[in-house]
Amino acid sequence: MTSAWVQTLKLSLPSLKDNTADADRLIQALKSRLGAGDIAVNLDLLRVLPDILRDADYHIRCVLYKDRGGWGISGVLPAEDQAPVLGMAVDLGTTRVVLRLVDLADGRALEESSFDNPQLEVGPDILTRIHHADSQEGQNHLQKLIVDALNKEMAALCASRGVAATDVYLMSIAGNTAMTHLFMGLNPRWIIREPYIPVVNRPVTHRASQLGLCANPGARVFVFPNIGSYFGGDLIAGILYSGLNLREKTAILVDVGTNAEVVLGNKNWMIACAGAAGPALEGGAARMGMMAGPGVIDRVAINPDTFQMDIHTIEELPPVGICGSGLIDLAAQLFLCGMLDIRGKFVVSACGDRLKEIDGLNHLVVVDQQVSATGRDLSISQADIDSLIRSKAAMYTILETLTASVGMAPRDLTRFYVAGTFGSFINPVSAISIGMIPDLKLDCYQTIGNSSLGGAARILESSELFEEVDRIQGSITYLELNVNQDFMNRFSAAKFLPHTDPSLFPSVKIKPM
Amino acid sequence: MTSAWVQTLKLSLPSLKDNTADADRLIQALKSRLGAGDIAVNLDLLRVLPDILRDADYHIRCVLYKDRGGWGISGVLPAEDQAPVLGMAVDLGTTRVVLRLVDLADGRALEESSFDNPQLEVGPDILTRIHHADSQEGQNHLQKLIVDALNKEMAALCASRGVAATDVYLMSIAGNTAMTHLFMGLNPRWIIREPYIPVVNRPVTHRASQLGLCANPGARVFVFPNIGSYFGGDLIAGILYSGLNLREKTAILVDVGTNAEVVLGNKNWMIACAGAAGPALEGGAARMGMMAGPGVIDRVAINPDTFQMDIHTIEELPPVGICGSGLIDLAAQLFLCGMLDIRGKFVVSACGDRLKEIDGLNHLVVVDQQVSATGRDLSISQADIDSLIRSKAAMYTILETLTASVGMAPRDLTRFYVAGTFGSFINPVSAISIGMIPDLKLDCYQTIGNSSLGGAARILESSELFEEVDRIQGSITYLELNVNQDFMNRFSAAKFLPHTDPSLFPSVKIKPM
Repeated sequence: MTSAWVQTLKLSLPSLKDNTADADRLIQALKSRLGAGDIAVNLDLLRVLPDILRDADYHIRCVLYKDRGGWGISGVLPAEDQAPVLGMAVDLGTTRVVLRLVDLADGRALEESSFDNPQLEVGPDILTRIHHADSQEGQNHLQKLIVDALNKEMAALCASRGVAATDVYLMSIAGNTAMTHLFMGLNPRWIIREPYIPVVNRPVTHRASQLGLCANPGARVFVFPNIGSYFGGDLIAGILYSGLNLREKTAILVDVGTNAEVVLGNKNWMIACAGAAGPALEGGAARMGMMAGPGVIDRVAINPDTFQMDIHTIEELPPVGICGSGLIDLAAQLFLCGMLDIRGKFVVSACGDRLKEIDGLNHLVVVDQQVSATGRDLSISQADIDSLIRSKAAMYTILETLTASVGMAPRDLTRFYVAGTFGSFINPVSAISIGMIPDLKLDCYQTIGNSSLGGAARILESSELFEEVDRIQGSITYLELNVNQDFMNRFSAAKFLPHTDPSLFPSVKIKPM
Repeated sequence: MTSAWVQTLKLSLPSLKDNTADADRLIQALKSRLGAGDIAVNLDLLRVLPDILRDADYHIRCVLYKDRGGWGISGVLPAEDQAPVLGMAVDLGTTRVVLRLVDLADGRALEESSFDNPQLEVGPDILTRIHHADSQEGQNHLQKLIVDALNKEMAALCASRGVAATDVYLMSIAGNTAMTHLFMGLNPRWIIREPYIPVVNRPVTHRASQLGLCANPGARVFVFPNIGSYFGGDLIAGILYSGLNLREKTAILVDVGTNAEVVLGNKNWMIACAGAAGPALEGGAARMGMMAGPGVIDRVAINPDTFQMDIHTIEELPPVGICGSGLIDLAAQLFLCGMLDIRGKFVVSACGDRLKEIDGLNHLVVVDQQVSATGRDLSISQADIDSLIRSKAAMYTILETLTASVGMAPRDLTRFYVAGTFGSFINPVSAISIGMIPDLKLDCYQTIGNSSLGGAARILESSELFEEVDRIQGSITYLELNVNQDFMNRFSAAKFLPHTDPSLFPSVKIKPM
């Protein structure tokens, strides 16, 4: 695979018969190579171009970028020069920032690293940060935090491969609307105030230096566009990565997290919405819930005859807690073997002495204190289960509402993309069993992991996708989720396991009582 | 007249039903107003845009520029804000720099000023300066000289109208290729070395700040393109100003100076050449020759019967010397009344005692020492006349060669534009009489003055001309003047008064002997 971002060219030599200027000679060759319109050359490059061309005998590698005005040149190197020409894809998360270093010549991924967003010191949630940015000092502070951290991580990541950050010529940044605003030093205050207006939907390809990034002096930074305050570039990147935008048949993309962000569509149209799915899905709500990590329960099986629990922990260490995917597994297994009823209540007869009442609330011991790493019982309460059920019901209701808006039902889908780190770990059988996602054939489900980073990297692989990103941005209709009677009816029906209408989930077979 | 550079817009207010971002809302309104493609907004503007829009209730004046990628926004002001929005046209001459301040809203000229190019301290001619720029320090020095002087003059010119240089949002610069390179800080060394390659033919619209210019922080600078080392943006601007590029019928444009720069063509094609016409035409060669100024002879008439000379001086002061146009007038009058023969030699019998032999060379006293301001005779030598004749022959030969290259003769022309300050003062009857320019009807001649400045100002009047400049640049074929046998034959024939073939100049009636 070769990417158009790096072009090796042997220019015709200047002569009395062809006295075209250096820059225009280069541009002409690139235009005919790329079939492109005009190609921009910045003043800084013009200042060094004559020497580079003559030293290289007009045999050069040219590094390109794209802007909405067309192609531009970010750097020119002698063809013989073996210096790497790199790209940096960035998933600019509110909590975690992930970088992927790629070879810009062929799009090959070289290395990846991540770090906690240093803005966490200001506030874990984006709302606190936006308020912090109410003063210009606060806004500058937040920008400096993320830019400094990016520079540091970028330098370290490059160093780990024996290259330099100045070898990076093109960066792509996918993040939510507030994060990209803070990163670009744009005032985010109107994002959270009615009617929720970002400063910009489609940023241009800015100069890295103008953003304070220590990449190559000519480097450019493409920031993924958003379609509003609540649907950011990370999701546009996710769509690009999934390929939903190219499919004939309608598919759905779900980015599962504290918010469920959902896109339904095909190559011709897309509708999107975002809704609070509740923290239960990320494992943050249950008393024993926690983020995935060593010793965290991520898979659960229950022998329907003996009710024996077979738990699996990350790195197979003594159990410390349970993460979202483990919780879904647990709830599904409890339900399937009759320990939870269709309302999600513990069935006392089936749970036996695993059930303990604490403060008037039923708790099911999942891991005995003798086995747990904490020395205490790891248990799940009825409240934890109720919370999970509200979350899964919200998720299913969002899916139902979105599909209904185009006259479809969730089960009509033939492709279901699950994005997000968390999404990668969900066992679809379990998620179907509790009625969180529709009862599709398993091969309809495709987990795509960090699709924001994936999309950011894709654009570094192939320049043709640049325009596709804008096409995606332009073809999405954002559906405001109105919590109206329809929605509430759907939500109530979805609060059963798997659903008040079990015919929607024919594959879910409960242990006969 | 209104120019598209400044657009007053009342944007639709953001609402929950239309949450388009601020920048994209502005861009959408501009796109529909201008029928344009995408419109670029720089990061600096994005950083202040939300406050400007809200303070102005989304009723704004938007200042635009054009680049080859399309339109861009250089500034946004509240519609109520009465601050002027200005443009600055610059004729960046090797010797003299002329500025014209214009109102960008309607293209109206407000004020003009000029100053000596401070690079003169390095060298009066461009060659010396290019050698000075061989070192990076020298190149930087030359750039700083011109940029500092431009900033100073721009500030003074603005102050004289009670406005500020920061009110200038768009500048257009027309200069020869070497001057524009020095101005932009581009290495000019290859301009004067075979095969004479500029760094760039078509510069983009750079940011004023990147060029060190103290205009508005968002201001843009359009530098006219060149078609090579010897045909610069000043001439492209001149073509634009003449309107030759729009005519059905083929016309010619001559910029007369030390070099004669000539363009022949119409709306479909243009050919151009530049040739040394010799310094005689600028009055620099004759012993009594000088630049136009107070007391300089600019018009001469001779009574054919009495041989009485009637001279006119600038500001009607006692005569100090003669300028180019005066010299052409003098030579024509001497020839028409028989004091010069067709070879341009003084006719002793006709010149009488005005003729004096000094060092074996004939001198004709034009102004007696009793009348001259210098206290000495102002005289013209045979060598001065010979030099003038070589110059006028070179000029005519260039015209003949250029027209012949497309199967025309100079007399086929119906429109003859004379550009350049010097050109403005030539009496066409006299120039025809000596055979310097073809024997066309007088109303075919049109003097257009400083066409470089004129063209630079035109583009500030109407944005549609932006693309026309590139069209002109792209439709010119540069004709290398080969001093071959054909050329020498033509030159020899043109060294007579008016020509060896008098049938080419039927209107020239010599006093019967």
